[in-house]
Amino acid sequence: MIEGRQTELWFTERQTDDVALSLRIAQTLLHEQTAWQELLVVETARYGRMLALDGAVQTTEKDEFIYHEMIGLVPVRSHPQPRRVAIVGGGDGGVVREVLKDPAVQQVTLVEIDPRVTEVARRYFPQIASGLDDPRVELRFEDGIAYIARLQQEVDVLIVDSTDPVGPATGLFGREFYQSAARALRPGGLLVAQTESPYLEPDIMSQALQAMAAVFPKTYLYLASVPTYPSGLWSFGVGSLGTDPRQPGARPLNGHTRYYNEDIHRAAFVLPTFVKELVNGTCQQQSTGE
Amino acid sequence: MIEGRQTELWFTERQTDDVALSLRIAQTLLHEQTAWQELLVVETARYGRMLALDGAVQTTEKDEFIYHEMIGLVPVRSHPQPRRVAIVGGGDGGVVREVLKDPAVQQVTLVEIDPRVTEVARRYFPQIASGLDDPRVELRFEDGIAYIARLQQEVDVLIVDSTDPVGPATGLFGREFYQSAARALRPGGLLVAQTESPYLEPDIMSQALQAMAAVFPKTYLYLASVPTYPSGLWSFGVGSLGTDPRQPGARPLNGHTRYYNEDIHRAAFVLPTFVKELVNGTCQQQSTGE
Repeated sequence: MIEGRQTELWFTERQTDDVALSLRIAQTLLHEQTAWQELLVVETARYGRMLALDGAVQTTEKDEFIYHEMIGLVPVRSHPQPRRVAIVGGGDGGVVREVLKDPAVQQVTLVEIDPRVTEVARRYFPQIASGLDDPRVELRFEDGIAYIARLQQEVDVLIVDSTDPVGPATGLFGREFYQSAARALRPGGLLVAQTESPYLEPDIMSQALQAMAAVFPKTYLYLASVPTYPSGLWSFGVGSLGTDPRQPGARPLNGHTRYYNEDIHRAAFVLPTFVKELVNGTCQQQSTGE
Repeated sequence: MIEGRQTELWFTERQTDDVALSLRIAQTLLHEQTAWQELLVVETARYGRMLALDGAVQTTEKDEFIYHEMIGLVPVRSHPQPRRVAIVGGGDGGVVREVLKDPAVQQVTLVEIDPRVTEVARRYFPQIASGLDDPRVELRFEDGIAYIARLQQEVDVLIVDSTDPVGPATGLFGREFYQSAARALRPGGLLVAQTESPYLEPDIMSQALQAMAAVFPKTYLYLASVPTYPSGLWSFGVGSLGTDPRQPGARPLNGHTRYYNEDIHRAAFVLPTFVKELVNGTCQQQSTGE
């Protein structure tokens, strides 16, 4: 045995064929095949406990606040009356926790296809799952595409917190789904969906935006920095039936935030020039003014 | 031989003890020890040609525009008369190329400690080094700390494009250097320095800002997304003798940009709540207004 040598365990996500992010892990807590996907829970040395699905980082204790605040709060804070919210995917409960911070939200329906994600979140990520037992929350374990297709003008904000467009999430990035999303929304309603990295998946991002723009009167894009997601920069597409998602409202917020604030809400819609060009013609542009 | 097996070559940067980014490489072009550091040039599969120093990614063809535009253009665009610019480090020439886009810039002094960086950039990264032969540019291969210490109110904008604070760059992050930087600047002048990742090196970032705030009347922080830098989010500290760096001026720009635009200039100063908290008390806060 070589003096000082120690076991090193690393989780590696091949973010593309040519780029990989590796996180050193202290302990593997759970590794199983669910009915839908491969599920891994590990304790990482740098980002705390982490959930990965099919080899892709979904959430870590240390940086989950960014994605969950930004996908959850931007639409509910900008909608004048976000009484009913539906979330497709997001079985860990992180988005539920965030939207419940807005006092205008009266009902949240979480539609997760894989019940194991929620069971695992309750056990291993109690801070993330903390909103799931709130009386305003309804949990449905079924296909989000089928559920949304049954709704007619019933929700104010629809949030798609999906995995990458492979496997069960593929249908969530297409025009047909956006059409049923638009039908599911009440007048003025907002659809928000994670739309991948503008650096590493520019085609997925711009195609999703194009598909939204073919269905919704107005389409927007905003960005947030997520260190454990590919390239560290993540995009969110918004299809709107009327509400301008770029302006946060004035309702007081219950609970604190660590990434989101009103200025970040507005600034997130300001796009670098190359991102503007990727979504040219499909998105409303944002300016910070003088 | 197993059918279909192929050689895979990967460059891996251990960004911290517990986080690593790996880029698949097609070819190693140069690998040497200079008088100052270990220098590597490889052709990556995803980000084009890449320069690494002491194992850390410095620049890649595909994403170099972001860092160079943001560290170079934010200070010169906001200064009312950035006639003389000094750059410490940045021997590849990327920052020189960007500041020359502002027609108000009359003289640029690049002070690089390692002449091999510049030689290698001219040969392997001609697009990045393209401004180095401009008649407005003076190249000095010497210690930037000693050079700046000799200046008395001579430059309008001083840009510190350094490596991480290990090895020769350590002194560039301390109060003593910021004091001589403040003396080197003309009235109203701006110091801009790269101050690492707010996620992975929050202490380096906030200590650099504290040291600046002890010297400069006003201190600011702004952010940009750089996919090949640790965490994908990078910070830039600004010490100002008077100019407000948050507002771009109206001079026309020679040449196009791919990340920078006037709205991004302003939005880059809008900080996520956790970053605000890290620099609380040392930085001016930015708001996007209504």
